[in-house]
Amino acid sequence: MDELDYRFLCELAAQLRVDSVRAAAAAGSGHPTSSMSAAELMAVLLARQLRVDVENPADPANDHLVFSKGHASPLLYAMLKAMGVVSDEELLTFRRRGSRLEGHPTPDVPFVDVATGSLGFGLPVGVGLALAARRLDRLPNHVWVLCGDSELAEGSMWEAFEHAGHEGLNNLTVIVDVNRLGQRGPTRHGWDLAAYAARLGAFGWHTIEIDGHDPGQIDFALADARATRRRPTAIIARTCKGRGVSAVEDREGKHGKPLADAEQALGELGGPRSLTVPMTPPASQGVPYRYADGPLVLPKYELGEEVATRTAFGEALAALGTARGDVVALDGEVADSTKLETFAEAHPERFFEFYIAEQQMVAAATGMQARGWTPYVATFAAFLTRAYDFVRMAAVSRAGLCLVGSHGGVSIGEDGPSQMGLEDLAAFRAVHGSTVLYPCDANQTARLVADMAGLEGIRYLRTTRGETPVIYGPDEEFPVGGCKVLRTGGQATIVAAGVTVHEALAAADLLAGDGVSVTVIDAYSVKPLDSPELVAMATATGRVVTVEDHWPEGGLGDAVLSALAENPVPVRKLAVARMPGSAGSADQLRDAGIDRTAIREAVLAMLP
Amino acid sequence: MDELDYRFLCELAAQLRVDSVRAAAAAGSGHPTSSMSAAELMAVLLARQLRVDVENPADPANDHLVFSKGHASPLLYAMLKAMGVVSDEELLTFRRRGSRLEGHPTPDVPFVDVATGSLGFGLPVGVGLALAARRLDRLPNHVWVLCGDSELAEGSMWEAFEHAGHEGLNNLTVIVDVNRLGQRGPTRHGWDLAAYAARLGAFGWHTIEIDGHDPGQIDFALADARATRRRPTAIIARTCKGRGVSAVEDREGKHGKPLADAEQALGELGGPRSLTVPMTPPASQGVPYRYADGPLVLPKYELGEEVATRTAFGEALAALGTARGDVVALDGEVADSTKLETFAEAHPERFFEFYIAEQQMVAAATGMQARGWTPYVATFAAFLTRAYDFVRMAAVSRAGLCLVGSHGGVSIGEDGPSQMGLEDLAAFRAVHGSTVLYPCDANQTARLVADMAGLEGIRYLRTTRGETPVIYGPDEEFPVGGCKVLRTGGQATIVAAGVTVHEALAAADLLAGDGVSVTVIDAYSVKPLDSPELVAMATATGRVVTVEDHWPEGGLGDAVLSALAENPVPVRKLAVARMPGSAGSADQLRDAGIDRTAIREAVLAMLP
Repeated sequence: MDELDYRFLCELAAQLRVDSVRAAAAAGSGHPTSSMSAAELMAVLLARQLRVDVENPADPANDHLVFSKGHASPLLYAMLKAMGVVSDEELLTFRRRGSRLEGHPTPDVPFVDVATGSLGFGLPVGVGLALAARRLDRLPNHVWVLCGDSELAEGSMWEAFEHAGHEGLNNLTVIVDVNRLGQRGPTRHGWDLAAYAARLGAFGWHTIEIDGHDPGQIDFALADARATRRRPTAIIARTCKGRGVSAVEDREGKHGKPLADAEQALGELGGPRSLTVPMTPPASQGVPYRYADGPLVLPKYELGEEVATRTAFGEALAALGTARGDVVALDGEVADSTKLETFAEAHPERFFEFYIAEQQMVAAATGMQARGWTPYVATFAAFLTRAYDFVRMAAVSRAGLCLVGSHGGVSIGEDGPSQMGLEDLAAFRAVHGSTVLYPCDANQTARLVADMAGLEGIRYLRTTRGETPVIYGPDEEFPVGGCKVLRTGGQATIVAAGVTVHEALAAADLLAGDGVSVTVIDAYSVKPLDSPELVAMATATGRVVTVEDHWPEGGLGDAVLSALAENPVPVRKLAVARMPGSAGSADQLRDAGIDRTAIREAVLAMLP
Repeated sequence: MDELDYRFLCELAAQLRVDSVRAAAAAGSGHPTSSMSAAELMAVLLARQLRVDVENPADPANDHLVFSKGHASPLLYAMLKAMGVVSDEELLTFRRRGSRLEGHPTPDVPFVDVATGSLGFGLPVGVGLALAARRLDRLPNHVWVLCGDSELAEGSMWEAFEHAGHEGLNNLTVIVDVNRLGQRGPTRHGWDLAAYAARLGAFGWHTIEIDGHDPGQIDFALADARATRRRPTAIIARTCKGRGVSAVEDREGKHGKPLADAEQALGELGGPRSLTVPMTPPASQGVPYRYADGPLVLPKYELGEEVATRTAFGEALAALGTARGDVVALDGEVADSTKLETFAEAHPERFFEFYIAEQQMVAAATGMQARGWTPYVATFAAFLTRAYDFVRMAAVSRAGLCLVGSHGGVSIGEDGPSQMGLEDLAAFRAVHGSTVLYPCDANQTARLVADMAGLEGIRYLRTTRGETPVIYGPDEEFPVGGCKVLRTGGQATIVAAGVTVHEALAAADLLAGDGVSVTVIDAYSVKPLDSPELVAMATATGRVVTVEDHWPEGGLGDAVLSALAENPVPVRKLAVARMPGSAGSADQLRDAGIDRTAIREAVLAMLP
């Protein structure tokens, strides 16, 4: 690096610091000190290694930059200003109502793939971006992730280090901003760079320890990272939080607040600059590889056949994979249980094994969808709870994910409560913009599995472990937001979904024997729920029984109540109210009070 | 070890294998092959190192044994049979309805502290047990954790390795059963014991690589583990899944199912034995250290004073810590934000910093409560979602935890959606046996913080970032399951909680100006909700508006609908329906449609 470059980088770093301080001062909040520590790291990356077409943020050949330490957003926005993407005027709208420059980055901002701000999310997403670039798109772009040192306490980071190390993702570089100070005090390892290097080295990463304020060392490390073969690289950089301003540099108690005296600080930093970085575009045109689309030939099941919906999911997804070259599948080492293995056999090159690392799995899917792929993620419904924060962050990221949870409810039988998804409907209903589907037979499952690919946002589909009879023909349509009225009767409406649909139908038969006629609704679309139809049927029959293989809170019953809220009729909710143990599936349904007998009794008890 | 011991251990291992096969055969399901791999490991532990008083499972001096690989429950139950705790007859009730020997262990079984079966949970709980033994109880018991090799893919395990390594928990030993085969195929590292040893060594653990079928090596390793100072020990044992039966040994596709030919297998294993192990009791009487109890002097706040409920939480918990010596506090490196720091300053010896590792934090609390402590766990409400699976497993464990989530809702302001708890009420309502509290002022918070210590199960309390006016006197009581009727009027009932209580009161004033009189209910106890009072008020007023700083699904509105389900009146739910950005608190409430203006409009729109 010649002297001119060196001076430019120092000036650019100063500008990034100055602009971080200015943005936070204008906002009256934010994280300038966490931005200042990484100013040289990002200045050198921007000027010497980040390859993006400034005019075309969507160019698939662009490098990616993920701020895993999302609270350092002032630094990111300062970089975008230096790139000419954000004006100085916009920079100062930081954290204001209506500004896209929010407190933590979201994809509303150019060159931001995902929302960050929940620490430990950005790096696993970066693994997904790097995997997608290499194994799916087959493009040489590089993924750069800036993370904090505190953040390395999150287990999700180690899922990412393990996965990337094992995959040998040399197109991934993590830059660890070791500024020694977390939110409330010193981090566990302080400036012990070797502690981080030993851990990362053991996980198969190439590690480089540097002074994170020395542009020359940074430049060497970044170039080395890009050139490294077969391994991802971690640049472990010793830095000072609040670097450059004596009032805050390396001091505790300065986290997450604007500088007390911004004017003084700007003076100490040499005042504002207006450098613009001439960005280097990607070397090649980015034409990502795409698998061919084909005809959609969904599996068909005979009426009355006994088929587990998880089996239909696997077969339908394999068929969808043939129809849509953009569909990929991610497994948490349970593909034989979720039946994702059917996809794996049909499309091995689009199947990704994440072992038992659900957070990394969901984050990788979030990265893949940012590169235009349509990911299906499957594990036990119960174990998707492990990644609930990441699903939340995927929603904040405006990401499109298809999540499939198998082994829903007590009906799984002997394995016991640790394996039962009993809160999944509640959890996924409470994700912004989500769709929640719960099919009851194989043909319905196949159709919904295919249709969910065309939706937006977080889509969740719950499957059942045991076999259930096929009650729909293979050509029936199941619009999202619709429902199926399976029986029509005047004295009550039973609303069921999934495994309880079959109990509801049996209860209707029992009730017919009692001389009671009921309507039975299959609410396969739990969110959005078919409110007009439910209101009509509920009003016509005057009373409703809901029945679900789920805890009483937040699931189908609450969804029905919400749909009827402004046009209410009496509703009795049947749900799993006691902690189950081990037992056969039929016993479980009976013990939980959600089988045909319980439904019949609930209806009879409601009759006048 | 002399020859007699060696033969006994071999026989005992064979018995554990035989009983694992028999139990699974009797059940027709289960995981015999994952049990068989660890038979020698557990035989030697049982006979030579595990120190428990068989007659007194609750003795605080007992060693702990955690089956982090909970699916190997047949092996655990076979051990209990060899200890004389479970009869052969009971062993064969495995996985049957009503049996305490469930598919995965729960604390209904003697010597089981927590439920396992969600991989990656047991070791972090073991860290909590070891921390409690050493730093709280000041007892020398040892914590032994059996985990699988697949399980090491879970990030939560690395949170545990990091925490235990850094704490130097030499009273903790993890035994890794490296049987090479996961559920659907080979693990990432197969029999590369060195890969695990390198990682664990880097995390500060003493590591020992052994042949896991050699009693001599196992015995040496276990003794070494117990004798090791300053560091936890990991025994990394090479084993064969299904060891001892040629039809399944080290073969793929044999996971999680009974042996096809149990008779043949039993023959190959030499048939049933009926050995009983004379267990060594703990060396000393176990009298755990306890901090003194004192008077409860809760903080008091003046009516009209502006105090953040998070501030009141911190001050109340510090006071509670003085009153109750069993109260401990766990932080996820945000104590300055949650205000747990007030407790830390008052009771530093009962304050535990977990850095940003929410799963380890919740698991450690679960371990501590198993040893009789009353843990309060606090982080941002949004980040508790990171530990949702562990909260679920804590509920299956019948554990008592006090969880406190700060920064609930859009009212936090500029930080943006990644920091906003907007699904926490839904998530925690859907935890079996949970209590969900959401106070609106400082005195109410203080009282609820103190009272929640006396409840059972999972308790969740949500606090607010910003200041809210004190509306209750310091001596007011807030029974869990109750509510407060703050205004009484005949034309509508407004149900609010937390920050929206103040908006509801303001709306009532606006409506009074419109000539409309409304009832305002503070539903601080979201679960259990005061159904009788709600039904009475709703029926009396004929219409209800609910308003919550939360997504529309699964929170206060759904709880109210559920309470009114069988006695319905029309309800309009106000909740956060759009993805928020950055803005001030008042703007956020307005933009979300949950402020006083929106409430007033909703009431007016419902009037005839």
